[in-house]
Amino acid sequence: MADKRRIAPASGAGLRLAKGEVLRIIDPEGEQVSDVVAYAADDLTERFSTGRTIDYAESIRVTTGGVLYSNWSRAMLTIVADTVGVHDLLLTPCSTEMFRILYGQENHPSCFENLAGALAEFGVGQELIAGALNVFMNVPVGPDGKVRVETPASKAGDYIELRAEMDLIVALTACSSEHTNNGRLKPIDFEVLAPDK
Amino acid sequence: MADKRRIAPASGAGLRLAKGEVLRIIDPEGEQVSDVVAYAADDLTERFSTGRTIDYAESIRVTTGGVLYSNWSRAMLTIVADTVGVHDLLLTPCSTEMFRILYGQENHPSCFENLAGALAEFGVGQELIAGALNVFMNVPVGPDGKVRVETPASKAGDYIELRAEMDLIVALTACSSEHTNNGRLKPIDFEVLAPDK
Repeated sequence: MADKRRIAPASGAGLRLAKGEVLRIIDPEGEQVSDVVAYAADDLTERFSTGRTIDYAESIRVTTGGVLYSNWSRAMLTIVADTVGVHDLLLTPCSTEMFRILYGQENHPSCFENLAGALAEFGVGQELIAGALNVFMNVPVGPDGKVRVETPASKAGDYIELRAEMDLIVALTACSSEHTNNGRLKPIDFEVLAPDK
Repeated sequence: MADKRRIAPASGAGLRLAKGEVLRIIDPEGEQVSDVVAYAADDLTERFSTGRTIDYAESIRVTTGGVLYSNWSRAMLTIVADTVGVHDLLLTPCSTEMFRILYGQENHPSCFENLAGALAEFGVGQELIAGALNVFMNVPVGPDGKVRVETPASKAGDYIELRAEMDLIVALTACSSEHTNNGRLKPIDFEVLAPDK
């Protein structure tokens, strides 16, 4: 098993994940979101698609057994463990513009910026960043279609495991939005488990 | 006022829309969906983003007064009229792969293919096609997160009007999925209204 790595609050990390390897994402303190994006290692225009994932799940919710699809409708990742079961596929990674537009905050750190920084070393341009699997993000949808951002359901030590179904480049964050993480920005831990764990 | 154009069943069309012009999309027979995508004319990597639109609407539903945002969080289009009020932002354009995976149908015509064909002449590659505003598509979300595709609420002559907030390249379809359009594929009409209509 690889060493556990820590993503500092309001920052991000990128990694290569080989087919069969499992990425475990851990919330070490609880109530902290991690935005996750993925790209096919051999074709960066093939990327995780929230829309295709909703199409095939026939649901806006995914948990253990659920498959994350690419824009070309191929399975990229399978959720093989999930101690929380509450994640979001609807909202985009928080960005400099979002903090300005929604909250009037200028130059706020953001998941978009942190994903872009983490992906740059792998040659993934920021124009290829779209929706993410927002791990541990709690976004109920009302009967009228209204979405609310509520406190993550994750407790200290909760985790999700994503098995790579193809060779991937993955980036993930410790989310930068106070609003999303119950008022306090915390770290996210991750480790890569070998295929035969 | 420009002439009205007709999109034949299971096909698509592309057009330039100048800032201030209004695209009226009409369902001439009723119960027919049109998938709509948009790109900034001066930078094709800036595109309509379903996720950013949901972020700023704080809702999965948009109707008159609603703004369609780009991936760079700029207003691309504003809904200035809407006689239906039921549209979808969650599901992606139907594709060859989707018909195979969900319905076991091979080589089925699709919105993705039709959008790609319509956009090619404007230099927009298919890797830039992601989510669409699925006009007239009726996709309720259950309390458990399950999505269902139901019969469009549109009647013959119903329409939506989208005002361009920047110079755009737009593509739209008459949707190819029997499942989505109550069993029969029908045309879609559209016209471009001058800024001072």
